[in-house]
Amino acid sequence: MAQLPRGTISVIFVAQRTDADAAGYARAAAMMEALAVQQKGYIAMDSVRGSDGLGITVSYWTDEASAKAWRDHPEHTAVRDSGRDLWYSDYSLHVAEVTRSYDWEKP
Amino acid sequence: MAQLPRGTISVIFVAQRTDADAAGYARAAAMMEALAVQQKGYIAMDSVRGSDGLGITVSYWTDEASAKAWRDHPEHTAVRDSGRDLWYSDYSLHVAEVTRSYDWEKP
Repeated sequence: MAQLPRGTISVIFVAQRTDADAAGYARAAAMMEALAVQQKGYIAMDSVRGSDGLGITVSYWTDEASAKAWRDHPEHTAVRDSGRDLWYSDYSLHVAEVTRSYDWEKP
Repeated sequence: MAQLPRGTISVIFVAQRTDADAAGYARAAAMMEALAVQQKGYIAMDSVRGSDGLGITVSYWTDEASAKAWRDHPEHTAVRDSGRDLWYSDYSLHVAEVTRSYDWEKP
């Protein structure tokens, strides 16, 4: 968690997991996270999944070109197909440009 | 979960809960959600908390003025003070304007 510069691109992924293939999903999620952090323009990621299988992952990128390059990364694309086939019943993805950002920590 | 119009304002709130005051927090969270949906310009909200206490809530608003009006709502402001005093150890808040939005549901 951190304050983000104005113009940062946030990619908000809200997804409902199915019950299928927990092990395969966990492997792929760990792989994608490890791969994302290596990409040009990657800043950070916040990710939470609730006990009902609903998850929100927000990744932050320095610019639109970096976010799009990650979207089009061949391994990411392949994993997205498995997501549709197996892991998710529905999802939304919103790309949004940061206009204000705050950060607070208990003193 | 839904596709959002370009220009929608997303408010991304990422917060780490303390262990304190679970009942008070649950009451306030339910109250705030009920109040938010009544505000002018409110579109939707996605919210998840993990077992480690990390939570992400994203609320979506038709425009910046509506998002700011909700930020400045007196009851919301009062609850934010309790958040800092009791419920959260740290949080980030990012306001971002939607440029692209997708929605998928298993056929």
